[in-house]
Amino acid sequence: MSSHGWLLACVLATLAGNSVAALMEGSTERNCSLTPPYLPATVVNTTLRLQALRAAMIPREVLAYIIPAADAHLSEYTAPRDTRIAFMTGFTGSAGTVVVTATKAVLWTDSRYWVQAERQMDCNWKLERDSFIGSITDWLLNEFPEGGRIGFDPFVFSLKTQEYLNADLAPGNLLLTSIPDNLVDGLWTDRPPVLPYNLTRLPDHIIGRTWQMKVDAIRMEMMANPYKPTALLLSALDETAWLFNLRGNDIPHNPFFYSYTLLTMEEIRLFVHTERVPEDLQAYLNSSCVQSMCVQLREYDAVRLDLAAYVLLPGVKVWVGTEYTNYALYEVISAQDKLVTSSYSPVLTSKAVKDKMEQRILRNAHVRDAVAVIQLLMWLETAVPRGKETELSAAHYVNECRSKQKDSRGPSFETISASGPNAALAHYSPTNETDRKLTIDEMYLIDSGGQYLDGTTDITRTVHWGTPTAMQREAFTRVLMGNIEISRTIFPSRTKGVNMEMLARRALWEVGLNYGHGTGHGIGNYFGVHEWPVGFGSNNVPFTEGMFTSIEPGYYKDDDFGIRIEDIAVTVPARTKYNDQTYLTFDTVSLVPYDRKLIDTTLLSEEQIRWLNRYYNTIRVHMGPELDRQGLQREKEWMLQNTEAFQTAGSSRALSSFTLSVAALTVALLQHVL
Amino acid sequence: MSSHGWLLACVLATLAGNSVAALMEGSTERNCSLTPPYLPATVVNTTLRLQALRAAMIPREVLAYIIPAADAHLSEYTAPRDTRIAFMTGFTGSAGTVVVTATKAVLWTDSRYWVQAERQMDCNWKLERDSFIGSITDWLLNEFPEGGRIGFDPFVFSLKTQEYLNADLAPGNLLLTSIPDNLVDGLWTDRPPVLPYNLTRLPDHIIGRTWQMKVDAIRMEMMANPYKPTALLLSALDETAWLFNLRGNDIPHNPFFYSYTLLTMEEIRLFVHTERVPEDLQAYLNSSCVQSMCVQLREYDAVRLDLAAYVLLPGVKVWVGTEYTNYALYEVISAQDKLVTSSYSPVLTSKAVKDKMEQRILRNAHVRDAVAVIQLLMWLETAVPRGKETELSAAHYVNECRSKQKDSRGPSFETISASGPNAALAHYSPTNETDRKLTIDEMYLIDSGGQYLDGTTDITRTVHWGTPTAMQREAFTRVLMGNIEISRTIFPSRTKGVNMEMLARRALWEVGLNYGHGTGHGIGNYFGVHEWPVGFGSNNVPFTEGMFTSIEPGYYKDDDFGIRIEDIAVTVPARTKYNDQTYLTFDTVSLVPYDRKLIDTTLLSEEQIRWLNRYYNTIRVHMGPELDRQGLQREKEWMLQNTEAFQTAGSSRALSSFTLSVAALTVALLQHVL
Repeated sequence: MSSHGWLLACVLATLAGNSVAALMEGSTERNCSLTPPYLPATVVNTTLRLQALRAAMIPREVLAYIIPAADAHLSEYTAPRDTRIAFMTGFTGSAGTVVVTATKAVLWTDSRYWVQAERQMDCNWKLERDSFIGSITDWLLNEFPEGGRIGFDPFVFSLKTQEYLNADLAPGNLLLTSIPDNLVDGLWTDRPPVLPYNLTRLPDHIIGRTWQMKVDAIRMEMMANPYKPTALLLSALDETAWLFNLRGNDIPHNPFFYSYTLLTMEEIRLFVHTERVPEDLQAYLNSSCVQSMCVQLREYDAVRLDLAAYVLLPGVKVWVGTEYTNYALYEVISAQDKLVTSSYSPVLTSKAVKDKMEQRILRNAHVRDAVAVIQLLMWLETAVPRGKETELSAAHYVNECRSKQKDSRGPSFETISASGPNAALAHYSPTNETDRKLTIDEMYLIDSGGQYLDGTTDITRTVHWGTPTAMQREAFTRVLMGNIEISRTIFPSRTKGVNMEMLARRALWEVGLNYGHGTGHGIGNYFGVHEWPVGFGSNNVPFTEGMFTSIEPGYYKDDDFGIRIEDIAVTVPARTKYNDQTYLTFDTVSLVPYDRKLIDTTLLSEEQIRWLNRYYNTIRVHMGPELDRQGLQREKEWMLQNTEAFQTAGSSRALSSFTLSVAALTVALLQHVL
Repeated sequence: MSSHGWLLACVLATLAGNSVAALMEGSTERNCSLTPPYLPATVVNTTLRLQALRAAMIPREVLAYIIPAADAHLSEYTAPRDTRIAFMTGFTGSAGTVVVTATKAVLWTDSRYWVQAERQMDCNWKLERDSFIGSITDWLLNEFPEGGRIGFDPFVFSLKTQEYLNADLAPGNLLLTSIPDNLVDGLWTDRPPVLPYNLTRLPDHIIGRTWQMKVDAIRMEMMANPYKPTALLLSALDETAWLFNLRGNDIPHNPFFYSYTLLTMEEIRLFVHTERVPEDLQAYLNSSCVQSMCVQLREYDAVRLDLAAYVLLPGVKVWVGTEYTNYALYEVISAQDKLVTSSYSPVLTSKAVKDKMEQRILRNAHVRDAVAVIQLLMWLETAVPRGKETELSAAHYVNECRSKQKDSRGPSFETISASGPNAALAHYSPTNETDRKLTIDEMYLIDSGGQYLDGTTDITRTVHWGTPTAMQREAFTRVLMGNIEISRTIFPSRTKGVNMEMLARRALWEVGLNYGHGTGHGIGNYFGVHEWPVGFGSNNVPFTEGMFTSIEPGYYKDDDFGIRIEDIAVTVPARTKYNDQTYLTFDTVSLVPYDRKLIDTTLLSEEQIRWLNRYYNTIRVHMGPELDRQGLQREKEWMLQNTEAFQTAGSSRALSSFTLSVAALTVALLQHVL
């Protein structure tokens, strides 16, 4: 699943959105210039809640209150109870920032969401068509030239957001004022509660390292840190889930539970909704004691006070990863002599490197996952020409196929099932409103993934059931060349992904094409589908052996089609002629063939064709037995047909030149002899 | 010329140095463990000057005094009058840091220089075999656990060095104390004076933009800056030289003169040794007035006071490039509301993009420069087998050849002429002591460049006059593949070099080889040979049209040989199939063929051979007429021989497969027929 960037696609979404708006004026979007304003049925009346928020702001003495789209763990996806912007504005898009003053209420969001915002917000709200943080601070500076206090909930602000805002606002005498009690939550009477399920532990047969082993290893890293931290604070939800081999269900598609951990040399404090930890888990966590290998269960909401008390102890220093620590906890330990920072906590950097067990089971999950995707692609080949299938029915089908696989835990994100021009839209997932019929005349892109107890998957295939245009074939082939070039490259361990990422774009650049999103993200064993900090972006950590990443170049033609080819690959040692120690390459673990019809082999180098043939052989080796095991003979035949080896350019050229030579020579010789 | 990194080669230098030391113990290196200490003749007696420095430290109340290897303009190369470390210690290496306390005197330097330091320093000095800034601060923190003041000259400290040191020292209560009067200069009685020549202006026929046009353009950039600076401070020597189209001669191989500029909307203040500006230049600079297009000449040494006075004016803000501004000027304007910063000044980023005139004359300089390099390579082919030539005589020869070319202004750096194992050493230039005879049994690397009135050149060729080993051919070919892959790549304008740099390494990585230095640096019109901020490093700016950079991959085998292939190339628009607007590629302007004997064409792709043949054709097109013009017919024949087209892999393979087919078929048919 593509993760960020999307510049090109965003621009497209804007254009597409505006033309739709023009057509449907007065029907699907609000019109606040009319008297009375026109409001479509999709709009939420926010008058009362805005009044309540403004009333709550008065005793806090703030001129404005800022609401970002974030939870206390800076999660990429958030739970319904954290969708404060949706509650306040009606707008349900995943990105945006809200500012409320005594007289104004404004939403900033990017072009993907402008149409949606006009459909969902009432006329209490102004839409600012911009998502740059500078435009928010400019607006505040302009609104309050005399200066004053600007309120925010530090739990849903990252350190960086606070720093950016403060750097802009301070020169204008606007003082960012931390209000740890969220003002929206105080008036959100029907806010979804914390879900009342029990946490679960991963079964022993898929655990390579017990939580005790992990705690030991992390404490070793703390001791090795030259700044000598006495404690490590874990804020991101996957950090605590990983450390204790626990999972939850608080965020759709993400097996996380609300939690923090404070790990010291002598203690382990797990901040969690303790009622969700049943007796067997309490025993598993050894929670009835307070020694160094006992997990003390503390209430989730107590973390800030607990941390503040810890920081008051003499000689302590708390290590935090700055990327995932909220400002509410950071400000408690902001004294420089109490703080040790790195971009990522040692838990995130340890978790990024999978051990042998994790590698094996994550590969296994991809074998079962490929069965589901093969089933979908095979089914679509016959179902689409019958004319009844749509983006939604295809998404439903693949979700169903996955749900039948062993240890399935549902999709790892909302399936992107996109036909024709819809595939060129950023973050498109079909709805009843946008659902498009699948036909043999359009390209189709499906980006989907599954959660399994042993691993998370994410794969994109783009297909055409009729006759693709020459441009579509060329673009697809060049996207594939990008995928292959990254996959087959050999590089020194600790090379950064950002320094190899252009290999995925180079074949496109050669003909003046490109794509506006990133090239890959980490992924792991039953976590979020984007498992940072592994990937090809500038913030990502260098590659070492045992890291899993997506590789997902694409190409998007406005109003026409979208192509993305996404596989998951793991970094493995590469044998080289002069040095076999420190070099790595990628081994692709997604096991689904590409649409042969879209591959123009004359564009591929011999090395690329050889890579493709090796990959197809790998699919046969792994998927043949698995499809047999599941009794799926038709799927096996489909897989075998679709993984036949391609002729290398050399062999075909040699062949054709040979054929010509033979023909010419035969004619010549026979003429001479006869 | 390779610019930085050199990790591999540094390690090698250490090893080589240590073995030499073991052999010559008691002769070329000091031995401070003997009583009395053994000191070779190369050592300088520093007792008195150390006493004098310590005496100067007492009234300043500093526990230690730090001396870096830098001048006030943070120049890459420094003038003799700025070699304060050499004066204090005897050690003449170009990198190092010195700390002097009341009882100790220490030099930190990297492994390239350890042997040299042991040969040149007396026993007053301790050598710390480390160049990381953290080892200096660790040493200070350990030496002074109670805290205190540490003195430094802010003119020779960059902003970043000050920040790094301060971040480490402040927690230990060590207070960095700025002492703007350099304590070494105060006791350096025979310090070389500022040279008494006149500055020169570039002739009109090689100037595309007058200084007035440049001042106008930079003032436009100041107005466009959102932080509204009222002044721009120029500290790097090439900034002032570029702005006024002036050159000097203060630093060997670098046509610079000591200077600063303070450019405001209303005034231009040029800080310079005013006695070096003759009347005609005063007229050229319009220095008798004080309006916005008059250059007010002020004394070089007055810059700090002058700037301090300017900063006191109400409403002013000074824009500085943080990479090249010394701490003495920065601290004068450190109030945040007086300061606007960017990594590089708008002069450096403007200068990075050459205008049409600059591009044309820089290409012309490379045509003349190639004559000299061709003369050298042709001469060596016959001279080396006669057994009389050495690294030094070859360096002398190429310098002589260059000096005969039009508008020559000498070498652009000290020629690296290195045979066999010497070529694997970092920053090697031959001396009488290390000079090696050139033979047909060793590879030879020559990295050299010229200063011309119209441009600066820098080119490296590696050759073998006998029979190279298979490994040498493979390594050379893979280095060449790296050079070609960078050169032929097509990329969107504003791509950063660091994101393409791996193309230069990829063919080496494939077989487990690599190199330990950067891949390229900017270069320009009669400036320093490393013209930042263009290049392939992480600090370099994105590529846009009209930037010149070196492309210089290499491979170094310890104690055996070194390979580097370096060309200068300019970014030019690339025509692409789907978009011809915003894509760039490189056009190579160095025009000297590579050693054919070292190229294994079976390793090259067809695209690489096609690129090579196109490049060789370009050499013929440009060098043929130039060699004719200079009456150099033998050189022209040599050039034509060495630029014959290579067969593409396809054509040779097709040919050989055709030949085989014909042979087999003929036999078969004839047997059948006869």
